[in-house]
Parts: sequence; C-alpha cells; structure tokens
Amino acid sequence: MNKKAIVILADGFEEIEAVTPVDVLRRARVDVIIAGLSKKLVSSTRNLKIEADMELTEITDADAIILPGGMPGAKNLANSKIVLKSIKNLNEKGRIVAAICASPAFVLAPSGVLDGKKATGYPGTEQEFGDKITVVDEPVVVDGNILTSRGPGTALAFALKLVEILVGREKAEELRENMLAVYKG
Amino acid sequence: MNKKAIVILADGFEEIEAVTPVDVLRRARVDVIIAGLSKKLVSSTRNLKIEADMELTEITDADAIILPGGMPGAKNLANSKIVLKSIKNLNEKGRIVAAICASPAFVLAPSGVLDGKKATGYPGTEQEFGDKITVVDEPVVVDGNILTSRGPGTALAFALKLVEILVGREKAEELRENMLAVYKG
Repeated sequence: MNKKAIVILADGFEEIEAVTPVDVLRRARVDVIIAGLSKKLVSSTRNLKIEADMELTEITDADAIILPGGMPGAKNLANSKIVLKSIKNLNEKGRIVAAICASPAFVLAPSGVLDGKKATGYPGTEQEFGDKITVVDEPVVVDGNILTSRGPGTALAFALKLVEILVGREKAEELRENMLAVYKG
Repeated sequence: MNKKAIVILADGFEEIEAVTPVDVLRRARVDVIIAGLSKKLVSSTRNLKIEADMELTEITDADAIILPGGMPGAKNLANSKIVLKSIKNLNEKGRIVAAICASPAFVLAPSGVLDGKKATGYPGTEQEFGDKITVVDEPVVVDGNILTSRGPGTALAFALKLVEILVGREKAEELRENMLAVYKG
C-alpha cells in the first residue's frame, strides 16, 4: 500500500518549499494530500494561488506531515490548534513530522515535539528554538521521526530525504538522478 | 519601472519548473504574470492545481516569456498557436525567451527561434532539436536572448540567471544567498 503524506498550506507559504515535496513524493508514488488551512484556495507569500485537495481537518493518521515555511505562512500554521494537534497526534505514533525554513522554529519548537532533539531551520531563526533544542547548521537534519531543513535551496534535498525514509534509498537515488538534483543553484 | 515576465502554464506542467521562476522573479520585484493555456485553473503532471493570474492571450509585449517543462505540458504548449505566436513576437523584439526541460526541444526548437543557436534541455531530448541547433550539456545556457535549462534540479539556477539578466547580477547574488541556493539536492 502506498504511504500517505499530508502537506499543509497556510496563506503566506513559501512556494518552492511547498511544491517541491509534493512533486518529489508523488514521483515516488506516495499519496500526497495538500490540505489548506481554513480554505481550499491558498495564496503564497508572493501571491501564487494553489488549490488544495481538501480543507484541513485534524489529522489522526498519516505516514508524514509536512510543513513548508514562508511568512506569514509559518505563523499561520503555528496559530492553528488543528495543526498543532495534528503534529502531536502523528508524533505520538512515531510518524514523520517534517518542517522547513521558518516552520521548525515557529511551529515545531512551540509544539514541544523537538524537545531534546537536534534540528535546523532558516538562518536567523536559531534563537527562536529555545534551550531544549540543539540547532545545527546542516541542510537537512533527521532526529528520530523529526525531519527539518533550512530554506528554498534545500527543499529538493529535504524532499529526497523524505522519499528515502518513506519509500527507500533506491527510489530516492533514482529520483535524484532523474530530476538532475546534481547542480547547485 | 519593474520588468514584466509571463510564465505560461499548460495542463501537465512540471511543478518545480513552473513555481521556481515565479518565486524567484517576484522576490526580485519582476512583475510576473502566470498565464494559463485555455483556462485559469491549471493542473500539473502530478495533479497540483495552480490558479493562473489570467487566461493566456497572444503576448505582444513583455520583457520575458518563460516555458516550464513537464509532460504533456510541453506538448500542450507546442500545439498552441497563441504560444508559438507569442514566442515569435517577443523573439523578434529581442526579448528574453526562456524554456526548461522538455520545452526547449518540444516548443522552442519547432518555433524556429533556436536556429543557429546553442541550447540545452532534459537529457534524452537531444535528438528532437534537429540539426540547426547545437545542443550542449550545461545546466543553463544563454545564447543571445534565448535561455534554456535542463530540469527540476536546474530550475533554481535557471531562475537566478533570469534575475541576473532582467534585474542584475547583484540582485541575483543576493537571492542566491537568501534562498540558500548553495546546496546540491
């Protein structure tokens, strides 16, 4: 059976960070559902409009939850009780909780799921993590079931790591080659 | 006055290749218009739905026209008389004509604007260019007003080169740093 991943879009999401995991995971035959926070037609930081597959309701079961960054997108995610409850639900089951850019500091850290763990985020957000979290300067960080990454330029590496975890290293390597993920920006 | 760029989306567009230039160029304060081919709500190769800013009409004036790849997106672009006429209109004025992935071979080559020029595209599309075009193996190729690139993994480099040409090298370098375009996938 295919794995299932939920990407949550709130108004003010970062475009590349939102779309890259959808693209890469669907290539890997993960069932990706784009869930819009409080609406189906969601607008990015720079006014790109994506029609979500559904409006977000509390997630109680999925193999992964994925939070793009961008402002005010990350703050909109952090202010949502449904988002925080969904993160906690999946974390308690040991499912993958993944966030990039502003979302590790502004959404995952306050939720408590990063306590005692190492993580990364967009440069400048380090002090927002608090003293229970070890912030490291790497493009993608995996600690247990939590996956964090830094920004648009690391979105492809972040998505390929998700494929490696959810589907396997062989599929991730195949996609890395097919998608020409061998160049720097 | 801000520069103006048109990104054309046809059903079956490649997600990362479509969204990355929109994100990067809007960060550089280029006025980007997303024009949907024959519709406003356009679906990607893997069923991501983007609401375009307008339905495409023949473009007679803009600083750049940008064609994402993806299948059947590139073939849908190639089959459109409005797309081909718009490419020719802007090429005759020496404006930037940019294409990535399948679109250099399947859209630009048949339009004639690449004749006598060098270009690149997705690996495997080389033979589709015909013998009037010199195909080279580089992530981004600029020949005069024509810009071509290879695939999702080169989309950020492609978009940053567009910023360099339309706005300037300083802005491109600033965005390269801010977007963390320093990592490989």
